[in-house]
Amino acid sequence: MKPTLGFLVLLVSISCVAPSGAPDAAADPLPSWSDGVTRQRIIEFVTTVTDPENPGFVPVEERIATFDNDGTLWSEQPVYFQLAFAIDRVNAMASEHPEWKQEEPFKSVLQSDLGALTGMDMHDLMTLLMASHAGMTTAEFREIVHEWLSTARHPQLDRPYTELVYQPMLELLDYLRDNGFETWIVSGGGVEFMRPWVEEVYGIPPQQVVGSRLKTEFRMTSDGPRLVRLPEIDFIDDKEGKPVAINHIIGRRPIAAFGNSDGDLQMLQWTAAGDGERLMVYVHHTDADREWAYDRDSHIGRLDRGLTEAAKNGWTVIDMQDDWLQIYPNE
Amino acid sequence: MKPTLGFLVLLVSISCVAPSGAPDAAADPLPSWSDGVTRQRIIEFVTTVTDPENPGFVPVEERIATFDNDGTLWSEQPVYFQLAFAIDRVNAMASEHPEWKQEEPFKSVLQSDLGALTGMDMHDLMTLLMASHAGMTTAEFREIVHEWLSTARHPQLDRPYTELVYQPMLELLDYLRDNGFETWIVSGGGVEFMRPWVEEVYGIPPQQVVGSRLKTEFRMTSDGPRLVRLPEIDFIDDKEGKPVAINHIIGRRPIAAFGNSDGDLQMLQWTAAGDGERLMVYVHHTDADREWAYDRDSHIGRLDRGLTEAAKNGWTVIDMQDDWLQIYPNE
Repeated sequence: MKPTLGFLVLLVSISCVAPSGAPDAAADPLPSWSDGVTRQRIIEFVTTVTDPENPGFVPVEERIATFDNDGTLWSEQPVYFQLAFAIDRVNAMASEHPEWKQEEPFKSVLQSDLGALTGMDMHDLMTLLMASHAGMTTAEFREIVHEWLSTARHPQLDRPYTELVYQPMLELLDYLRDNGFETWIVSGGGVEFMRPWVEEVYGIPPQQVVGSRLKTEFRMTSDGPRLVRLPEIDFIDDKEGKPVAINHIIGRRPIAAFGNSDGDLQMLQWTAAGDGERLMVYVHHTDADREWAYDRDSHIGRLDRGLTEAAKNGWTVIDMQDDWLQIYPNE
Repeated sequence: MKPTLGFLVLLVSISCVAPSGAPDAAADPLPSWSDGVTRQRIIEFVTTVTDPENPGFVPVEERIATFDNDGTLWSEQPVYFQLAFAIDRVNAMASEHPEWKQEEPFKSVLQSDLGALTGMDMHDLMTLLMASHAGMTTAEFREIVHEWLSTARHPQLDRPYTELVYQPMLELLDYLRDNGFETWIVSGGGVEFMRPWVEEVYGIPPQQVVGSRLKTEFRMTSDGPRLVRLPEIDFIDDKEGKPVAINHIIGRRPIAAFGNSDGDLQMLQWTAAGDGERLMVYVHHTDADREWAYDRDSHIGRLDRGLTEAAKNGWTVIDMQDDWLQIYPNE
């Protein structure tokens, strides 16, 4: 190709760019998604519910999208990242708790028995997570999480945990918000573990984060009122708990829901059962090279019944290997 | 005055009106508030936190204002309106529950013993409220509330309950939202009793309503998933419960809080204890002619410790008789 022609092409390209500041209808909102059926289904859904002329139009105030966090917005292997946090906390606090040497699940943590840890069910995990970070005020806990995130690195990928979020999902969150959606997290993880960082990382404000939680107690002290985190689980936001919490806290049925495990199944069922256009999506971890590959037999993020239900009901399944051109930001 | 001069005055007035559609800086955002210290304090607060040049400026995402409902946004006499709803429900359901004739608090309801009812504490009231509207799905309950509100009328004022909201508070909600605030309800009342109507009446969406609640259970039926309301209290959003729920659900400390009773004291204390500009406001029911007058000795909406703390801490107290030119809309 002659330089002259190249120059011409460049000129034409420039003349086609929308004026700076104006909305650019041609810009690709999902550049990290490969151009397949999954991407098309998402765009088709958003186009339908935002088009006032379409019978599937949904008023802006009802555009609620809920996202699981672990395995849906960021990675969850080889252990849930909140468990990595708990492990670091338990090790740091062990000298004050000699009884933990004999007591599960603390014993396994102190022995770095990863096999035992990954075999725990959600309730055991929550017990460990909650017990390991109770006994301080909510403000103190927020500081502890901040501090940990600014120093801890993933043991295999050697990156800060907050960089192990999925670039395609960041684009999807933006795309939905640009189309009038409220994007909510509805996660089995602890709500106070997520709130300190999800606003910066996902653009999701604290009041749109639903999660598991400890009981907290209001105490009036000589320094003023405090909220103290008690070592007692108040609510586990997993499985049947997800639609229950969605109803309690959001008070509206989502029209779109995203998960990656059987723990998200009831949220997707609840979303699917509403009237009108619906989008139910599972992230399927199929990429052993760039991330991890696991589903029906995994201890973490098991996706067994969910895969079966997705096939039966025609829900969308993201094949991470095929559908995502990029996994993490800044790759 | 000569007609000619009147015409001239009219012309001058017209020429001073801002062009249609343009923001009118001179428009009074609080026309139902008399021009006293209370109104000035509210406007001063909003002006301060929204002025980027002011050291008291608060970024828009932190502008959270919380409002109690009963006695703060609408009336609560002679009984909480949700209790009037429960009474109507209990009477309607009594034939299916012969045991209620012998059992308090149902017995008092069926005997229309208003004295006994107004003497109940919040926990008894909640028991009655919750028990009288459990055993159906959340969708069915919403319909029941809608139906009741469209037919029931206040026994003394002979108006629909949703018209017994305070016009000055409607203006205040709009004024705060126009200045970037999120306005939240944080009420001892049932969250699912409020959500069916507060969006239309107050402009507050379901996801900004915090209240007391029953336990609900997710059930997969042959007709799809259902959330069933169980006859068991899950959470009472009163007194110490208010800051606890604010932390669980909003995840941010309010910068402004509005209540009318000792049940709101901890919410106001929690709000006051944050850094920077704060606005703590009590509605004081002082108007026996246009509404009701009650405070330290009232069974409903008792304001005793709250009045003392307000005076001690310099919080704002709305004197309903002096500060409000109008009580209800369409008067």
